[in-house]
Amino acid sequence: MGHTGLRRKRAVEPLFEIKLDLKPRGSREASRTLHHELRAAILDGRLAAGAKLPATRKSAAFFGVSRNTAAEVYEKLVTEGHAVSRHGAGTYVSERTAGAASARPIAAQAGALRLNPFWLRADVTAAMGFWQDSSEPSPMRKGTPADFRPAMVDSRLFPLDVFRRVSAKQLRGLERKPASYKSPQGNQGNYHLRKAIIKHIAITRAVACQAEDILVTAGAQQAFDLLARALVTPHETTVALEDPGYPPMRVAFAAAGAKLVPVAIDAEGLIIEQLPSDVSVICVTPSHQFPLGVTMSLRRRQALIDFARERGAVIIEDDYDGEFRYEGSPLPALRTSQAADVVFYVGTFSKCMLSALRLGFIVAPSWAMSTLTAAKNCLDWHCPTPIQSAVAGFIAEGHLTRHVRKMRDIYRQRRQLLLELVQDKLNEWLVPIPSFYGMHIAALGRPGVELETPAHALLQQQVKIHTLSRYFLGPQTQVGLVFGYGTVDLPDIRRGVSVLRKALQE
Amino acid sequence: MGHTGLRRKRAVEPLFEIKLDLKPRGSREASRTLHHELRAAILDGRLAAGAKLPATRKSAAFFGVSRNTAAEVYEKLVTEGHAVSRHGAGTYVSERTAGAASARPIAAQAGALRLNPFWLRADVTAAMGFWQDSSEPSPMRKGTPADFRPAMVDSRLFPLDVFRRVSAKQLRGLERKPASYKSPQGNQGNYHLRKAIIKHIAITRAVACQAEDILVTAGAQQAFDLLARALVTPHETTVALEDPGYPPMRVAFAAAGAKLVPVAIDAEGLIIEQLPSDVSVICVTPSHQFPLGVTMSLRRRQALIDFARERGAVIIEDDYDGEFRYEGSPLPALRTSQAADVVFYVGTFSKCMLSALRLGFIVAPSWAMSTLTAAKNCLDWHCPTPIQSAVAGFIAEGHLTRHVRKMRDIYRQRRQLLLELVQDKLNEWLVPIPSFYGMHIAALGRPGVELETPAHALLQQQVKIHTLSRYFLGPQTQVGLVFGYGTVDLPDIRRGVSVLRKALQE
Repeated sequence: MGHTGLRRKRAVEPLFEIKLDLKPRGSREASRTLHHELRAAILDGRLAAGAKLPATRKSAAFFGVSRNTAAEVYEKLVTEGHAVSRHGAGTYVSERTAGAASARPIAAQAGALRLNPFWLRADVTAAMGFWQDSSEPSPMRKGTPADFRPAMVDSRLFPLDVFRRVSAKQLRGLERKPASYKSPQGNQGNYHLRKAIIKHIAITRAVACQAEDILVTAGAQQAFDLLARALVTPHETTVALEDPGYPPMRVAFAAAGAKLVPVAIDAEGLIIEQLPSDVSVICVTPSHQFPLGVTMSLRRRQALIDFARERGAVIIEDDYDGEFRYEGSPLPALRTSQAADVVFYVGTFSKCMLSALRLGFIVAPSWAMSTLTAAKNCLDWHCPTPIQSAVAGFIAEGHLTRHVRKMRDIYRQRRQLLLELVQDKLNEWLVPIPSFYGMHIAALGRPGVELETPAHALLQQQVKIHTLSRYFLGPQTQVGLVFGYGTVDLPDIRRGVSVLRKALQE
Repeated sequence: MGHTGLRRKRAVEPLFEIKLDLKPRGSREASRTLHHELRAAILDGRLAAGAKLPATRKSAAFFGVSRNTAAEVYEKLVTEGHAVSRHGAGTYVSERTAGAASARPIAAQAGALRLNPFWLRADVTAAMGFWQDSSEPSPMRKGTPADFRPAMVDSRLFPLDVFRRVSAKQLRGLERKPASYKSPQGNQGNYHLRKAIIKHIAITRAVACQAEDILVTAGAQQAFDLLARALVTPHETTVALEDPGYPPMRVAFAAAGAKLVPVAIDAEGLIIEQLPSDVSVICVTPSHQFPLGVTMSLRRRQALIDFARERGAVIIEDDYDGEFRYEGSPLPALRTSQAADVVFYVGTFSKCMLSALRLGFIVAPSWAMSTLTAAKNCLDWHCPTPIQSAVAGFIAEGHLTRHVRKMRDIYRQRRQLLLELVQDKLNEWLVPIPSFYGMHIAALGRPGVELETPAHALLQQQVKIHTLSRYFLGPQTQVGLVFGYGTVDLPDIRRGVSVLRKALQE
């Protein structure tokens, strides 16, 4: 995907030792023969686990088949689990698929299992590879890395000692209780945790709700998966998504069988006029658009709610970092009491605490709660009790408020330095997009600026930064960089920007 | 479902204050009018949240519509979230659906959201209500309850103090680590935990595998959901399930769009000859059939594996309580090294530790691992790190082995007493099915014995026991009781059996 130039030298090409026994005639036979030969080579180990397959272009030329045929064969190998496709980095032989003991029996008759091909589809793999580097250079050079990837937090700044004390105290509380039975009430989440969440979001986000409106989830990702499975009727439901946006969220809806429609963003947020007429679910990040960083304007919010009410559609508000606000007049969440009937509010403890806790929640309209609870039961019944109690205690004792306050100060300094440096040192190439919340800023490339090559070159210098390319579902309409400051301290920000400036100059 | 007689006296019937303004003509108009009136009554609060709707028969008679029409209207209200249907206990107005602020906007145009009706379907609600009591009598009488429901464990016997110490120690270890980044490796589960699982299942179940073969899940339920989503292609894949069996597992496969086929059990386990020819996934509990308790014979195991290989199908082995074996020659898990290509082994810490931890795992054939990992990422990325580390430490330090040994002794005593009492006191009505593993035994009713009424009557005496009726997917072919001994101590077993004997005599 445009990066092949970077890795051409590394590629070992064992494929080219494979001979096609039959000279195929038609394209269907060509495809079948090539597939058969490659699969056999993988199963008997001639193609080693982890080996990279050559680009389809090369492989097509070598075997004398069309590029479409080569691509089709690769995709089939991926579907069968013999190969795996990595975002922007080509196709590889699966790990440990080789060897008879673990090889899958091949049967062509009715009933023969076909893995659901959705999960290894190239677009799904690319979207779920969001948190991975598409081209991690083999051994990273020494020195501290500067990681500008957004929505990541530095666990070294989290008061793990406090969390540990609270956690132990809560476990001691559990010891004194009688035998615990699975309770349907608990499936929406621990009551104390839900009470604590009410307090937390009332303070930081002005969201008013009751414990019955909350469903605790395994992070925001499970919230998306759960909402997708509750709100989507396969092949029927149309879901509108911000474009650019957060790719793993899209996968949850695609997996549930939704039709996805990308909708563009302007300075006021999602462009309502672009919503398709048959939309029933609209996903937005109104506080701090991911990744552009704009805040949805008040009139746009009202229009969105009116639109949803009129059409009988619903809105999913992903409020992933709304706790961190730095300037501008405070806007409450989209999910106000007046909009409680049409908005599903998704919150997470991954940003304001730690993503390793895998805890988030949905504030849902009451008419949907029984459906959501039923789906949650089928997914995993409930989130682990010790984690829920520990987070409940952490919030109730005031530690979360303190931690958010501390991090807000740290992030404010990082953000300010970053904005100054982008304006001072990178002004020739980039224009930052105004934003007032969160843990990242985005900057658009000035006309004609190419960012993919410099961003990739930075990896050699231990600077990780996302271009906007990986955020688009539809055609890429904007070129830019996303600067997350969740894990970079001030010296890293200085070094990162200076390295970036050099790369842009080259 | 046959229990309405028990609750007729309690029912308040506010529905009967509602008048149908229009005298409907056709059945379609009758349905529309009745639906409109009931929905309006719910939304404006005339029908209070939580109120029970009369049985469809009564309601049909009152409004002068057919019983089918009344049932259709109730179902529509449930689909819309205005009402909720409880297993065997009728239909109730949803909690807090009333009141304008939380009422859902009604729109009839294209795009209007329809909740996925699957989750509130009567059969799904019944299956997911497995752990609930269908008719909990309002305030339980005083005294210790005797709970014979299977697969539940008494958390008071779990060494929570040890777990707390190990947990705190592991969290201290996390403090010293550098910033943690999301790693694709971690998505299969914490490496130390997977190493610990290898050790645990090698000892207790003779399952030999490597860390790469293991995927950590949020309990067995997530393992089922994950397997369903990876193995099922909607409307295409046929899944065979033991009948009787574990209802919440079926829901996971039904939700993924599988065709479910119930297959009967005999003294040797699943009857292979009954498997449909187009089956691609076969779910079994070979160590200790749930709920009948039989162990699959060696020749049946071999036949099952041969069948799967020949057809290109796969087997899911749910080994929920295989750690506890009491007599007979030890049989290893179905998933031996020789069957590693066709068996997905599902293990859980819910029985041998605590279900509140929500931790389980899949040992998967390597050809399926990349698909499973991709699906797990979309579900929730990974299980919470603190819980994974704590369980890893608990196993590595030998506490799990000690705990399983202790519980095996306790369960052996309970099991022996239970078997003696069933033979001594209940012989007139019940014949226990031989079984050598686990935390429950089943007993079949002698010809002509009716068990539903006595089992329900027992609830008044604080004795909870399952009849076999809730375990069937196809027509109920066997009548019997399931005696779980995970949460009943010796005195409770004595009391429970004696109360049961009295109920059977009546």
